[in-house]
Amino acid sequence: MKSKGQIDFYLDFTSPYAYLASTQIETLAATYNYSVVWRPFLIGATFKITGRKALIQHPLVWEYSLHDVQRTARLLGQSISIPVKFPILSVKPGRLFYYFQERDGDQRVAKEFAAAVFQAYFVEQKDITEIQTLGQICAVFGVDEATVGQIVTSSEMKARFKTEVNAAVERNVFGAPMFIVKNEMFWGVDKLGQLGKWLETGGW
Amino acid sequence: MKSKGQIDFYLDFTSPYAYLASTQIETLAATYNYSVVWRPFLIGATFKITGRKALIQHPLVWEYSLHDVQRTARLLGQSISIPVKFPILSVKPGRLFYYFQERDGDQRVAKEFAAAVFQAYFVEQKDITEIQTLGQICAVFGVDEATVGQIVTSSEMKARFKTEVNAAVERNVFGAPMFIVKNEMFWGVDKLGQLGKWLETGGW
Repeated sequence: MKSKGQIDFYLDFTSPYAYLASTQIETLAATYNYSVVWRPFLIGATFKITGRKALIQHPLVWEYSLHDVQRTARLLGQSISIPVKFPILSVKPGRLFYYFQERDGDQRVAKEFAAAVFQAYFVEQKDITEIQTLGQICAVFGVDEATVGQIVTSSEMKARFKTEVNAAVERNVFGAPMFIVKNEMFWGVDKLGQLGKWLETGGW
Repeated sequence: MKSKGQIDFYLDFTSPYAYLASTQIETLAATYNYSVVWRPFLIGATFKITGRKALIQHPLVWEYSLHDVQRTARLLGQSISIPVKFPILSVKPGRLFYYFQERDGDQRVAKEFAAAVFQAYFVEQKDITEIQTLGQICAVFGVDEATVGQIVTSSEMKARFKTEVNAAVERNVFGAPMFIVKNEMFWGVDKLGQLGKWLETGGW
């Protein structure tokens, strides 16, 4: 059956809510015969425009979020811990994601890589800014640690990721996870229910 | 049947999301045999502590919120417009709410008053900081305009509302709408689904 449409899924590898959303979006989309394009970007790039700050910078809000992340994870049947090194600048996994996408011409491996990065960071408490960690993840997808080092420092992949981040900013993506279906934006893991209804009904 | 417990519903009369939540919470609570205590407060009082700002002060986020408020309202079968005079400092309706609660010894009329204030502000585009508007609303509940003027400027009701705002701050309520069930906090109209599940299951 032909896909009814595309969901753009904007994520930052440092966002716990983006991780939780990533465990749900493919099943949700498939239920209503939509496809998903994953779009890693840097949420920090948008803070300059909106004047917002990371959740962790707001006392009380962060305390609530820590609790809410666990509660939402349990409801979704996922496990999550906020890593000791948090938040991180996710440029390296971001560049690798688009490397896999370019290498393969589709997102199949790129999505598996992204899921493995989230798993390493939020479940196994690994440092996903380290080449060694990324090398372990990428070995499964045919890229060794030395090559990982080359990819994340290559001017080509730096430029590519920058282009993707700028495109997200251009599109007014100001948070993560952000879902866009034909210009309709849904912000946050708490919006998955409304997004599902939107896919089911075609909007209201 | 005896109530299974109490939901504290923290609201600010200037919050469109609190208005939308107010149209849902009583039915949701009744479904699971919970009672609701409405607790008007001033969200601005919490911003000093958290370092957060009103949504309207963040470009892009506010643009999204304007759209999302309408989308969520349509889904809930409610109508809403963001008033020209927005946001407002909601001390006057806040003081009147607690006046009705004290006068009657329960929240029956106070809740009807709150619903009427939200309706006047977000549906009829009236200025709920004006004594005249509040007088029209209160007439139905046996309080004329002159008395409204006395209540909202009385040192007793000023102190009473201040106590309520401080109590909300003390309890770490940093947003509106906020729902608390036995110290479990749920923030935002998007959390109504999760709150309902919590009431249904007793938590997870």
